[in-house]
Amino acid sequence: MENPHLLCSKMVLTFMADADVTIETGIDTDIWDINGPHLFHYHYQAGPIVSAFAHTGELSIPVAVSQAVNLNFPCEEDQQVTGNGIFRTFRFRVKAGEHRTVDLFAAVYTGLDGGKPADRAYALCQSAEEQGFQTLFAAHADAWDKIWRGSAIELIGDDNAALALNASLYHLHSIAPRHADNLSVPARGLSGQTYKGAVFWDSEIFLFPVFVHTEPELAKTLLRYRIATLPGALRKAAEYGYRGAFYPWESQEGGAEGCTDYNVTDVFTHRPVRTYFRDKQIHISGDIAYALWRYFKITGDDSLLKEGGAEVILQCARFFLSRAHRRADSGAAELLDVIGPDEYHERVNNNAFTNRMAAFCMENALTIADMYRESDFFKALLEKLTYQADLELLRDLAPKLKKMHPEGAVVEQFDGYFKLEDASLETVRSRVLDEREYWGTNHGVAAHTQVIKQADVIAMMALFPGDFSDETVERNWRYYEPRTEHGSSLSACMYALMACRFRRPDLAWEHFVKTASIDLTGGGKHWAGEIYIGGTHPAANGGAWMIAALGFAGLSVENGEITLTPCLPAQIQTLRFPVTVRGKRVTLTVTQDGWTADG
Amino acid sequence: MENPHLLCSKMVLTFMADADVTIETGIDTDIWDINGPHLFHYHYQAGPIVSAFAHTGELSIPVAVSQAVNLNFPCEEDQQVTGNGIFRTFRFRVKAGEHRTVDLFAAVYTGLDGGKPADRAYALCQSAEEQGFQTLFAAHADAWDKIWRGSAIELIGDDNAALALNASLYHLHSIAPRHADNLSVPARGLSGQTYKGAVFWDSEIFLFPVFVHTEPELAKTLLRYRIATLPGALRKAAEYGYRGAFYPWESQEGGAEGCTDYNVTDVFTHRPVRTYFRDKQIHISGDIAYALWRYFKITGDDSLLKEGGAEVILQCARFFLSRAHRRADSGAAELLDVIGPDEYHERVNNNAFTNRMAAFCMENALTIADMYRESDFFKALLEKLTYQADLELLRDLAPKLKKMHPEGAVVEQFDGYFKLEDASLETVRSRVLDEREYWGTNHGVAAHTQVIKQADVIAMMALFPGDFSDETVERNWRYYEPRTEHGSSLSACMYALMACRFRRPDLAWEHFVKTASIDLTGGGKHWAGEIYIGGTHPAANGGAWMIAALGFAGLSVENGEITLTPCLPAQIQTLRFPVTVRGKRVTLTVTQDGWTADG
Repeated sequence: MENPHLLCSKMVLTFMADADVTIETGIDTDIWDINGPHLFHYHYQAGPIVSAFAHTGELSIPVAVSQAVNLNFPCEEDQQVTGNGIFRTFRFRVKAGEHRTVDLFAAVYTGLDGGKPADRAYALCQSAEEQGFQTLFAAHADAWDKIWRGSAIELIGDDNAALALNASLYHLHSIAPRHADNLSVPARGLSGQTYKGAVFWDSEIFLFPVFVHTEPELAKTLLRYRIATLPGALRKAAEYGYRGAFYPWESQEGGAEGCTDYNVTDVFTHRPVRTYFRDKQIHISGDIAYALWRYFKITGDDSLLKEGGAEVILQCARFFLSRAHRRADSGAAELLDVIGPDEYHERVNNNAFTNRMAAFCMENALTIADMYRESDFFKALLEKLTYQADLELLRDLAPKLKKMHPEGAVVEQFDGYFKLEDASLETVRSRVLDEREYWGTNHGVAAHTQVIKQADVIAMMALFPGDFSDETVERNWRYYEPRTEHGSSLSACMYALMACRFRRPDLAWEHFVKTASIDLTGGGKHWAGEIYIGGTHPAANGGAWMIAALGFAGLSVENGEITLTPCLPAQIQTLRFPVTVRGKRVTLTVTQDGWTADG
Repeated sequence: MENPHLLCSKMVLTFMADADVTIETGIDTDIWDINGPHLFHYHYQAGPIVSAFAHTGELSIPVAVSQAVNLNFPCEEDQQVTGNGIFRTFRFRVKAGEHRTVDLFAAVYTGLDGGKPADRAYALCQSAEEQGFQTLFAAHADAWDKIWRGSAIELIGDDNAALALNASLYHLHSIAPRHADNLSVPARGLSGQTYKGAVFWDSEIFLFPVFVHTEPELAKTLLRYRIATLPGALRKAAEYGYRGAFYPWESQEGGAEGCTDYNVTDVFTHRPVRTYFRDKQIHISGDIAYALWRYFKITGDDSLLKEGGAEVILQCARFFLSRAHRRADSGAAELLDVIGPDEYHERVNNNAFTNRMAAFCMENALTIADMYRESDFFKALLEKLTYQADLELLRDLAPKLKKMHPEGAVVEQFDGYFKLEDASLETVRSRVLDEREYWGTNHGVAAHTQVIKQADVIAMMALFPGDFSDETVERNWRYYEPRTEHGSSLSACMYALMACRFRRPDLAWEHFVKTASIDLTGGGKHWAGEIYIGGTHPAANGGAWMIAALGFAGLSVENGEITLTPCLPAQIQTLRFPVTVRGKRVTLTVTQDGWTADG
């Protein structure tokens, strides 16, 4: 953890009999991704430190790996280069009862790290060997210790839940981009090639909260990735004939869209199916603007806004402006032909979540314009973007796009949702002919029913708590929860959070356990049509923290001020966790009797 | 043909040997439709005239059928009532070489005909028997003769084509609602239960032209059906949250929508598929307004407009107004999420045909408002409909909705069509896994390619010839024709018409023969998914006349004035046909050398 370029291992071998021993190790370069071989133009270097060099297939980024082996005993070594890597074989003889220690050191650098990858990998390996395993392990343990001090949650009352919750954090910390200035987290972490290593809204809505409250610098790193990839979002908007920033649904290098037009394969015909995730999930731009704004509101720190965040928000608002329509007769404002968080219903009109998110983005653009009215950086920005006329249009449109929901009403997920067949989840499930078939798109079993994949209206209520009373949240929860398949790992967390909102942690508990333990139990869907979508679930990992901290503890931080409204389930006696507010670490302790803050 | 309630037949039997003869006849009431038994509550009446009475299942309309048999020779008769009807058996003995004549008379009345159906059926049977077959046959032949004098086409040069063309007219005349004041023609005529006996845009776009030029009263009858069913169209618009008149895609009794939300069955899963014909084929309202306006322009007779036609046009324009959107930033006018004539591409934006049709409807509403500015009937209408504010909105919107296409350009069928995969018809066909599978909806093999079901841009050019130069039509024809599957019997006729427009009747000929002979060869598609869509093709029958008269002869009538721009294919030496203009029959003769008008 102390150095992300370095891998170390120590093996202590104890022999039960006299033996001739062979250890095979080296660098295996037979690496494939979903498009075929991942690396090209291999070459290898033998010696006490062996190295492999190659270039990635698409972007031709150089990659270098070096390996050193430290054996504190005499042995023979052979090295061999094959088409699949550089391998080394160690041979030695031992007697029964003897011990041997094998320390391995490997270093990885790419052309994105600066300098010459081959030289840096070699040098790091050399230095690691010199420092030795113990020294490096101590540094590694120190680094983890520092991380845990800032985030570990003590949950007293249910050991399994405590384990699952901290395992979730372990997964998150393992993939958090501490080494980078701007970088985000793929939807399946580093667990495989599912979703092509792309970054989704998961980062802003499900990972941002834990980081902004425990390691705000990491939250900044995630958001700087979006600031840095603004050009990709501008290109995508233009591709569809819109202005402003339409962020990729699956963001790849440089903000390129990785989502294809055919994201599901039909299990009956084995033909690709046209899906609209790429084109219609426009809430992504709102989600990013939302997180940027939340960073400012939670921390009171406007540096991100000034370093490009304001520009992102303005460009997202401009995108929504150019994407929105008015009815020709009534002038009503609409966002047509979208997909909300619930992906089983494609191409819907006025998805409540999307409209609210877009309106919020527009409101924030206007607020920023007010805040920085006299600021030179902002005047220059307005001029650069020739934004003045759009500000006037936004001022008119934003309030119209923010739909008013009558107090207490169940919010319709999108126009016409309530007219869909109100079939139970069991009925819809009974129509499934093939366990891998996809429930969405026009042909899916859920598509024309009220069964939804994941929290949508409830996600909106979680993100805009001020818009709805506790009673309204409860009424909506009780309507939508039974109609939710929870076919996404992003779903249960929102329902758990909102059950705490109306003070029913008992209803949250099952969703909490499911969310926190998803990567221990191997839960979650593994197939979307014929496409494999398994792997680890960073968003659920972040969701587990959200439920514990924002739900059970009821944590809320605005402008550096902490408030807690605890709502502990009966299963938890004590919940103790650190948060970092304005650079200061505070340990919060919540029991069934109340809460304290220390630090 | 003289009396639509009466069926007569004469059998002359010649015997080659001595024999005991049995003739079985009667009234079979075992009638089923696609929803089950068609009739309920049967009762029967025996006697010299046998009768059966019943009520239809859904609307409980009384139906009466009577039968008389005239045998000019002695015989024994038994009558028997079973669960399936009333049957009669005649037994007699003959010697070799003798003749016997059997005349059958049957009469049918329903509760929609006025009076008591049972009494009227019985009385008509009685009267028919008294008048005798010869008299009735003469009246029938006279009636047909009168019809043929007004419409038969003499085509010299290709006997098969001549036969097919007049067979098409025979089909049309057999189903034309001459007996009614307001009634239209189902898409499969009276040939079966396909499409549930519903009326489509076929009536206004493909049947209206032949009737308005040969029997204008029939054209009026078709259009009065739309005037009479305006309430159904108002209800449908309201059901979808729009104002004005949204006519049914499949119009049933009283203008009720007969099209379902699931109009195709998937051949792979056998599950119903959500289709959007009902919701999105909004051009239907424009097609009806178009025909109403054309009736006025062709005949110069504004009686239909005053008898409700103007109200229909205003309500259709209002529907388009409430269905249209403006971009929130640019104010551009759009018709979003529609299906044009090409049903393989559902839910598209700004279909050129639909936008043009809607703009025309709006323009006509404005023209009518100008024409009748001082008229009391119109002032009362505007007040009844509280239409004044909408007129202002239309005046602003109509010109913006009428997209300008650069001269000579291939018109994009809808937003993004040119970006679709440009796969050849053969390539798309090669992807078909089941010959009955439907090519449209999101999963269809054509849906995301440029392969279209039927004329769409070319249909627009046929209906709005003044918008496009001959060269532009030709360029579009050559682009779209190879990409057209002609999966609808409405397609070839438009391509044939437009080939004449750019003076290439040789390119029209194949489409003409295919259109005219569809019901002789058993052509056309018989399946949409698992739904049978076979039967006769009135629209193609009307289309055959359109190609001959409007294409090959180049007939155009405006305000009672005839002009011809002949474009005869090499296969035709002479084309001679009557038209009725302002109550006067004129015979037009077209040869390769020119044309004459007599009468």
